[in-house]
Parts: sequence; C-alpha cells; structure tokens
Amino acid sequence: MASGPKENPSNNPGLHVTPDEATKGYIMQQTMFRIKDPKVSLDFYSRVLGMSLLKRLDFPDSKFSLYFLGYEDPASAPENPAERTAWTFSKKATIELTHNWGTESDPDFKYHNGNSDPRGFGHIGITVDDTYKACERFESLGVEFVKKPDDGKMKGIAFIKDPDGYWIEIFDTKIIKDVSAGAA
Amino acid sequence: MASGPKENPSNNPGLHVTPDEATKGYIMQQTMFRIKDPKVSLDFYSRVLGMSLLKRLDFPDSKFSLYFLGYEDPASAPENPAERTAWTFSKKATIELTHNWGTESDPDFKYHNGNSDPRGFGHIGITVDDTYKACERFESLGVEFVKKPDDGKMKGIAFIKDPDGYWIEIFDTKIIKDVSAGAA
Repeated sequence: MASGPKENPSNNPGLHVTPDEATKGYIMQQTMFRIKDPKVSLDFYSRVLGMSLLKRLDFPDSKFSLYFLGYEDPASAPENPAERTAWTFSKKATIELTHNWGTESDPDFKYHNGNSDPRGFGHIGITVDDTYKACERFESLGVEFVKKPDDGKMKGIAFIKDPDGYWIEIFDTKIIKDVSAGAA
Repeated sequence: MASGPKENPSNNPGLHVTPDEATKGYIMQQTMFRIKDPKVSLDFYSRVLGMSLLKRLDFPDSKFSLYFLGYEDPASAPENPAERTAWTFSKKATIELTHNWGTESDPDFKYHNGNSDPRGFGHIGITVDDTYKACERFESLGVEFVKKPDDGKMKGIAFIKDPDGYWIEIFDTKIIKDVSAGAA
C-alpha cells in the first residue's frame, strides 16, 4: 500500500533515504556525448542555449578533444590551465562534448541519439524562464524541433534537436506543475 | 594561430562568448536515460552513489514512470506534489530515470549504453572527494568497473557501471589536474 508522499521509501523498493557519509560532497558534474563537428556544436550550445566554454582539453596522441560547457561564468575561472581544469570539475551540471578528430569531414558520419533502437540515453533538459518565449526564439534561430510546446498531450513542454540530433527538453518551473498534474 | 587561453573564441570557431540575454537564468537541469528495473537502479543511485529521490511521476495511461534523483536534500522539498515538481525542476544536475513498465520482468531486455556501435551518449560523471577512496568503497560494494583508477594511461580516473551498464566516470578535482596536464 502506498503511503505518504510518492517519493517515500515505503513506496519505492530499493531506495535508501540516508546517503552514506562517504558520498557527502559528491556532485553530478558532467554528461558526456560525442559530437561530429565542434564548430557547429559550439555555435549551437553557446549562441542558441547560452552556455560558455569552461574548459577544452586536446589529446593529440589519441586524436580527440573534449569541450566542457555549462552555465558558469568563465570570467571567474583561474588563468592557470590545470587550475582551470580543477575549477571546471568542481562545477555541477556541465556537458562534455567529445570530438574524435576527422568526423566533421565525413559526410556520412552520424552519431546515435538513443531514441530509436537500440535505445538507452534519452535527452538532456534545460529549465528556461518561459517555455513559449524560449521556443519562439529557437524557431526564429532555425532550431529543429522534435516537439513544439503545443504538440501532443504534454502542452508546454518542448523538445529541440542539437546539431547531432540529440534531444533537448525545454520546460519552465511554472508550466511543469500543470503538466505533471496529469501524472498519478 | 592559437592565442591566449585555449578556451578563447579565437581558438574555437563557432563559439560565442557573450550569452544572449534571453538565455539568462537557463539551467542544465536533467540527463535522462532509460532503466530496466527501478528497484535495482534506485538502490544503486541512492545507496552506492548517495543520491536522493527528488520526485517521482507515474503515467499509468502510457505505462511509464519517471524518477528524478540528485544531490539535493528532499527534506527541503515542498509537501504539495505539484510544488515539489516545480522545486525539482528548479534544481541543476539531476538524473531522470525512465522506467517503461514491464521491462524488469523480461530477462532478455537490455538498454544500450552508447559506448559500442551505434555510439552517441558516453557517460555521466561524478566528482567525488577522493577517487581512490571512493573506488575502494565501490569495490567493497561489488560495483562493476569499466576501468579502475590505475588501469590504462589515465591514472586516477575510474569508470564504473550502473545496473543497466551505463558508464559513470569517477574523478576528484585534485587528481584531474595531473591527468589533464597530459593534454595539449
């Protein structure tokens, strides 16, 4: 029998409510996905979504680069490159874009977004101030939509695509209350 | 010619340095991936990684549930369910586990972690206080490793697997400075 808030452990087998002391201070720091062309992805995540490039790491021997982006002000990053790495890894909620060199010049190269078989990863999600206003701007910038805010049952929630076809959910905290009110 | 910090726009075609006013207040809120069995995944993310269940949403008509977890204290969540949804969506860096009902009882059912063909998504990453100490604890808890901290070239960085086989990178801000010093 469900009792109390749906999130109570009695309603969620497996759930432990008191985090182990050893995990104190853990942060969810990054979400990594692979991108075909950094020029196109850096443009999208900085110009369209307003993220900043926090750190870039190049690995010439293995021919790949990592781009860490997020909603932090890089003006507050240390100048020393190693210190800047540590600074980046102390920040929550970054995305890590992995570029394997050369994919950008292969016209047939394409990554898998996880939403068709074989499925797994689904999307990242951005909380915006106002979903409709944000989506109007995305439309004016030519961003591709998977779902516009008024499509389908979940009014007020949108999904856009990044340049590689990864899905990005767009919502705001006001509208999400109504949408989720339909949930049991 | 590269000039100044590697992260400068002059070194990164496509990068815009001044975020559009319209994106002010955007937060990277969630990373969604699908899980086979919530009982097993809730145990893993709460007991092993120390996350809390911030919000659960059930959609009986479409036969799926969403579990939002993260490093927030649910004791500070509002009691009202809709307000708790808004509270959750105002928090950075959550994971959203999607459970399509029934997959847990299909012995052959398996999600794709994105690190074999077709590739795309790679991993999430957790900053811990001390990578070696954290990994000793993970070992004692029987967690499966993709890479132990001393395996391979990148000493001090580890990858573990969640119950569905998704990769989780483990690092700390002290060790990451040395590892990334090898990057150009």
